[in-house]
Amino acid sequence: MRIALDASGTDGAPGVEVEGALSALTELDDVSITLVGDREAIEAALVERGATASGRLDILHAPDRILASDSAATAIRRKPDSSIVKGLQLHRDGEVDAFISAGSTGAVMASSLFLLRPLPGVDRPTVATTLPTIGAPMILVDAGTNVDCKPRHLVHFAHLGSVYARDALGVEGRPRVGLLNIGEEPEKGDERSVEAHALLAADPRVNFIGNVEGRDVIKGSCDVLVTDGFSGNVLLKFYESVAQYVVGIVKTKLDEIDVQLDYQRTFSMLDYSEYGGAPLLGVNGLAVICHGGSSPKAIKSAIRVAADAVRNELVADMAAEFADRDTSKVLEGEQSA
Amino acid sequence: MRIALDASGTDGAPGVEVEGALSALTELDDVSITLVGDREAIEAALVERGATASGRLDILHAPDRILASDSAATAIRRKPDSSIVKGLQLHRDGEVDAFISAGSTGAVMASSLFLLRPLPGVDRPTVATTLPTIGAPMILVDAGTNVDCKPRHLVHFAHLGSVYARDALGVEGRPRVGLLNIGEEPEKGDERSVEAHALLAADPRVNFIGNVEGRDVIKGSCDVLVTDGFSGNVLLKFYESVAQYVVGIVKTKLDEIDVQLDYQRTFSMLDYSEYGGAPLLGVNGLAVICHGGSSPKAIKSAIRVAADAVRNELVADMAAEFADRDTSKVLEGEQSA
Repeated sequence: MRIALDASGTDGAPGVEVEGALSALTELDDVSITLVGDREAIEAALVERGATASGRLDILHAPDRILASDSAATAIRRKPDSSIVKGLQLHRDGEVDAFISAGSTGAVMASSLFLLRPLPGVDRPTVATTLPTIGAPMILVDAGTNVDCKPRHLVHFAHLGSVYARDALGVEGRPRVGLLNIGEEPEKGDERSVEAHALLAADPRVNFIGNVEGRDVIKGSCDVLVTDGFSGNVLLKFYESVAQYVVGIVKTKLDEIDVQLDYQRTFSMLDYSEYGGAPLLGVNGLAVICHGGSSPKAIKSAIRVAADAVRNELVADMAAEFADRDTSKVLEGEQSA
Repeated sequence: MRIALDASGTDGAPGVEVEGALSALTELDDVSITLVGDREAIEAALVERGATASGRLDILHAPDRILASDSAATAIRRKPDSSIVKGLQLHRDGEVDAFISAGSTGAVMASSLFLLRPLPGVDRPTVATTLPTIGAPMILVDAGTNVDCKPRHLVHFAHLGSVYARDALGVEGRPRVGLLNIGEEPEKGDERSVEAHALLAADPRVNFIGNVEGRDVIKGSCDVLVTDGFSGNVLLKFYESVAQYVVGIVKTKLDEIDVQLDYQRTFSMLDYSEYGGAPLLGVNGLAVICHGGSSPKAIKSAIRVAADAVRNELVADMAAEFADRDTSKVLEGEQSA
């Protein structure tokens, strides 16, 4: 398979991307990579690492770069030569099997919607992320893309997240779906949550286990945790930082009493670079989004995530989930939402 | 001063409350306590601990108890002999300076609104809680009471939280107020956040520092973190659990290599029982709410919280904040919200 990688996405572009790509190529035999970005800068970064664009690695020249300050909605028209637009076009045209970017999430989302199109039946494609828990990892959906959601969108997230949990985490059967909420009872929470609870409970295709409180997230009490992008993003970013904080306290304390600990290994389950990237769920293609602050290791992980998704036919599975489902429940939600 | 303590609130009532009260009495010389609950059960719990209701400790008989399953809105009429209603009446009648309960938060909120009344200018009283951070502790407001908020309510929370930060945390001058959001820029977030950002930025009485992302919470980048009760509650409960989780990993690891650590001391800043209770902000009186799972130590801390608030005249300060403020900004918010 061939994967296009935006080489202008991370804070350390293109060096970080180039290093991640080289590392992925040695690990994944069946993957070829197209680096999309400024040819000269990429070539320089390759030379620095004693490599060239040859064999399973090539370059697509894209001189422009969409910045965080650019409007995501208009960037696609204003910057047709940007790495995000060029890379997604390559994927749309069937030249590559997936596209990966650590650039502006909004721009990747908007450009993917425009170039790849949403899957039939999905009106809010979403980004899921994998959260480490005491038990198995958990899919958090939405992780920050859709902030003003209607209850029916949360039902879509439940379906997309369930497919992703099966494909990416290998959850067998019907993944357990929980709704992030502030109490266990169905009537708890804001209006959106109460309505979403009713819709999810009535959907025979969702293995809904009910509300999941903030304190239960870490227990891994479900496989797919559904929420709006606002709460999801707050939770995700807070998780990363609080884990680092507590580990920092431990390190200070153990240094004091002169005890050595392999922190990286002890807390490997908290290492987000292990998870790498998050595919956009619900579009007719495979676009994987990474942190702007990604390390080469995180980029390599994202390439593995994309390769796994291609192998598992994630896009076809999502299309099937929405193609043959009973849409009456969704329409019901639409009326009341 | 005299403080009424609901003796039927915690999961271990009335023993936990009685133990917390006895411990507070030895520590706080100027505090007298009225235990509100079933007289016989309280007396038995006192005898068990070699104490009696005398001196600075007395009992108000309240045979009934509002349960989590009771409707908070109607409990006050249906259960006039409950500890929550009896205790709040005692406070309303000026017999005690504060009321503390670890019972149903919804019932304490509803009964306080009815018996104590909101302060003029406040239409959504709120519960703030104190979050430990790397720097100074931070006031999180709302912590779970108001889930469907309008942007102008978040402005109220900013004012109430600022007064509380000055009174309870001793923040000097004008506390820094941040808005919990999913990006730094003013236009980031859901509709509510974008509008709240504009209102807060335009309010000359709020020392608004802008949006605070999930990852910045732990840094203590503001004194008062404003958010709706949904996100606030998710954040709060998640924080408690993830800290326990990471400490658990450390403990397992250190046990393996046979290293002893005083966990309670090392992680004392993560110990919520240090913070105890959260006063209801924006009502004409002092009602302090505790976790249902409170320990005797947490109850003692809540009594200290209440005593501090009485000494600092928190209620008068909140009334002053709303009495002499420029309400035009709020009205502006009201129209657009």
